[in-house]
Amino acid sequence: MEIVVLGSGNVATHMAVALNRAGHKIVQVYSRTIKNAEQLASKVGAEPISGLDAIHCSAELYIFSVKDDSLPDIVSQMPPTTGVWAHTAGSIPVSVLSPHKERGVLYPLQTFSRDRTLNFRDIPLFIEGESEETVALLKELAETISGNVHLLSGDKRRFLHLAAVFACNFTNHMYALASEIMDEEGISYHLLNPLITETAAKATKMDPHTAQTGPAVRFDEKVIRKHQELLNDPRKREIYALLSRSIHKTHQ
Amino acid sequence: MEIVVLGSGNVATHMAVALNRAGHKIVQVYSRTIKNAEQLASKVGAEPISGLDAIHCSAELYIFSVKDDSLPDIVSQMPPTTGVWAHTAGSIPVSVLSPHKERGVLYPLQTFSRDRTLNFRDIPLFIEGESEETVALLKELAETISGNVHLLSGDKRRFLHLAAVFACNFTNHMYALASEIMDEEGISYHLLNPLITETAAKATKMDPHTAQTGPAVRFDEKVIRKHQELLNDPRKREIYALLSRSIHKTHQ
Repeated sequence: MEIVVLGSGNVATHMAVALNRAGHKIVQVYSRTIKNAEQLASKVGAEPISGLDAIHCSAELYIFSVKDDSLPDIVSQMPPTTGVWAHTAGSIPVSVLSPHKERGVLYPLQTFSRDRTLNFRDIPLFIEGESEETVALLKELAETISGNVHLLSGDKRRFLHLAAVFACNFTNHMYALASEIMDEEGISYHLLNPLITETAAKATKMDPHTAQTGPAVRFDEKVIRKHQELLNDPRKREIYALLSRSIHKTHQ
Repeated sequence: MEIVVLGSGNVATHMAVALNRAGHKIVQVYSRTIKNAEQLASKVGAEPISGLDAIHCSAELYIFSVKDDSLPDIVSQMPPTTGVWAHTAGSIPVSVLSPHKERGVLYPLQTFSRDRTLNFRDIPLFIEGESEETVALLKELAETISGNVHLLSGDKRRFLHLAAVFACNFTNHMYALASEIMDEEGISYHLLNPLITETAAKATKMDPHTAQTGPAVRFDEKVIRKHQELLNDPRKREIYALLSRSIHKTHQ
């Protein structure tokens, strides 16, 4: 399939590389900053562009993978094109892409970082389309890069994105707070690696409610009080108190 | 080594099984509830006992792996014995085992669940001892079951335990909250598996501050507001707000 990629961030990069590897032709990569467009374009053999007036108008698919806030602005500047328009955002309705008619969504449920190589085949891809034809095209495309493709409405997708914030962003922030505690004591943060790995492994095999361990689920008030005394940082203390209460309430 | 294990919970079980496999003789397993003692004892070829007066008094090591709150009570009822006494708790000072003189700590930094098989060799074991002889004995023993043994003072160990609460218990609670959101929408929670696995994998390879993604780190107020509107549960809404603020402050 002939594809134009709009965006050059982590999601755009990982997806363009996966599509290119699957044999699709990335015709152009657009970024407001030409250097960023060039960087991704060179990886996938595409033409880099930094103006929307230069866009190739007869591609089969336009993937909008830009910051949520920039999306309406970019859409408003798009010239008329053939083909399907699809965005990759979790919390934005497909209607952001109107008045273009063949519009849809291609949402990858994963956390992307620049220097991480990912096996795209394992990444759940959630698609939505305004017509049967668009759904069929996005499904066919999605299945060339992922073995985990699902049709999901925008109403449900935003809850999926919300759950992902808890399971990924907030989880990662817990690791960050743990690393601050370890660093302050001069203990290597990466001693936590087997604990982090096993906690995640349990959550993928078991119900996380059953997997819960620690002082809060036992409501071990002595340990909870001692831990709070060790925390000088009021922000960490507030988080400790709120999450311990929440775990306790869940397991009452 | 001849070892008596006091306790029959998850930590006691995983540790007794690992010690038994490494060739040590588990002489007795004590639990207040004889059925629990029997269950673990049968796994490691030990004698189950439910009274502290029945304890074998000339073992080389007594491992106290009971609930933190029960520990002082059990210690106070212990008959005089030879050998070293060691507990497995993260937040309890070694002094809880006085007046016995040869006392120490053997703290495994891991989350243990009944039905999970673990490779004990990867688990970091933190030891402490009141004398050089006790340290030497605990180190020798620890190295027979783990390739990740460290000497650490009780003062530092309690910070390690505190960091572990963030990296494991709070992290797992985030998975539990995500699963509640998914369940309410009728979307399979385990679709989050690749996201959970990659988030944890990143945290073991990168600095979690660098690994952070999501609306809070970008301070995408629109998405944050929309997510909060989706949350009917005031507890989840409070957690969402506090953690988003904390991520934002960390990355300002």
